[in-house]
Amino acid sequence: MVVKVYGPHCASTKRVLVCLIEKELEFEVIPVDLTKGEQKNPDFLKLQPFGVVPVIQDGDYTLYESRAIMRYYADKYRSQGVELLGRTAEERGVVEQWLEVEAHNFHPPAYDLCVHVLFGPLLGITPDPKVAEESEAKLVKVLDIYEQRLSQSKYLGGDFFSVADVSHLPFTDYIVNKMKKGYLIKERKHVSGWWDDISSRPSWKKVIELYQPPI
Amino acid sequence: MVVKVYGPHCASTKRVLVCLIEKELEFEVIPVDLTKGEQKNPDFLKLQPFGVVPVIQDGDYTLYESRAIMRYYADKYRSQGVELLGRTAEERGVVEQWLEVEAHNFHPPAYDLCVHVLFGPLLGITPDPKVAEESEAKLVKVLDIYEQRLSQSKYLGGDFFSVADVSHLPFTDYIVNKMKKGYLIKERKHVSGWWDDISSRPSWKKVIELYQPPI
Repeated sequence: MVVKVYGPHCASTKRVLVCLIEKELEFEVIPVDLTKGEQKNPDFLKLQPFGVVPVIQDGDYTLYESRAIMRYYADKYRSQGVELLGRTAEERGVVEQWLEVEAHNFHPPAYDLCVHVLFGPLLGITPDPKVAEESEAKLVKVLDIYEQRLSQSKYLGGDFFSVADVSHLPFTDYIVNKMKKGYLIKERKHVSGWWDDISSRPSWKKVIELYQPPI
Repeated sequence: MVVKVYGPHCASTKRVLVCLIEKELEFEVIPVDLTKGEQKNPDFLKLQPFGVVPVIQDGDYTLYESRAIMRYYADKYRSQGVELLGRTAEERGVVEQWLEVEAHNFHPPAYDLCVHVLFGPLLGITPDPKVAEESEAKLVKVLDIYEQRLSQSKYLGGDFFSVADVSHLPFTDYIVNKMKKGYLIKERKHVSGWWDDISSRPSWKKVIELYQPPI
């Protein structure tokens, strides 16, 4: 069954696409133009009542929330492609911990920084330099903890690449390549090595080549 | 092995405690006094570098982030106690979706509402009635979508109680019982029935009886 993926050009959808490629699953993409508000159309709201992307359809199975979709495919196809959850309950526990850290510690300041430096006007938000500054300061503290973690472990979830790493790709790419704030990564030896590693995976290269972000 | 749980009086720790009780696991609690900043003590930061609760220690295994801890125990002890993740990959996918919805759609406005109505002064934050009002408006929209979901399904993740429901207990309790904003729940027939159901589980009753929140 070919997986239908809605909204391939959006950051959070890229998590899903990387995961599908790593799991060697076929997919087709269905663009959703957020600048035209297509994610609020009645037909789209039937798929995703909160009106955001991504959503997948896999036969008659529909699922949303990028991190939930990653978990679903990584779990359902454990023995296919790259193992993205760890082999034991303990390994998966640590992967889940860092996936939660991404969602609650890394993502909010990274997202706010992007909004107030990059794509605020696209969303109808007036960029506020103070929010950008505060967000960067928060991100610095988070990345200092990542540096410590990555000095002890090759990847965030352990000595193996996992959904916890995948989840960081889209917004770290914005930080390094769109906002020219690569110093946040490069100044930290282990974070820098980790970023070089995960961002050079063929799955990620394919996703950014095929589905350039809207800005 | 008895699970050590740090910070039992805090809202997010209660998710973990309910889960441990539902899975029939033994635990002991270790208080962490947030009003004294104990979560920022060097010894605590060795367990949890971001300086927040909960953390669990299970022998030499340490884990933090409440939703990751819930997943770990629900996964490791699938056949013990109440099944909290669903029986198939598809059921678990939907549970994960609603656990993500809780984290990203329900929790932020519920938390902000609590901060600006209830415990702001405890955290050194001056309550802002405008933020409280905006948060409540956001929560109303989220709960309208919950009402639709719960008109089709007994619980959020499906026709079975799951970690997605557990995750809503602490902050819905604040809304209903501490802020006296129970109308947000009661005005919605299916949300109201769901809340009556999940909040009357013996696991939750035990947790609120033993570990009253700090306010």
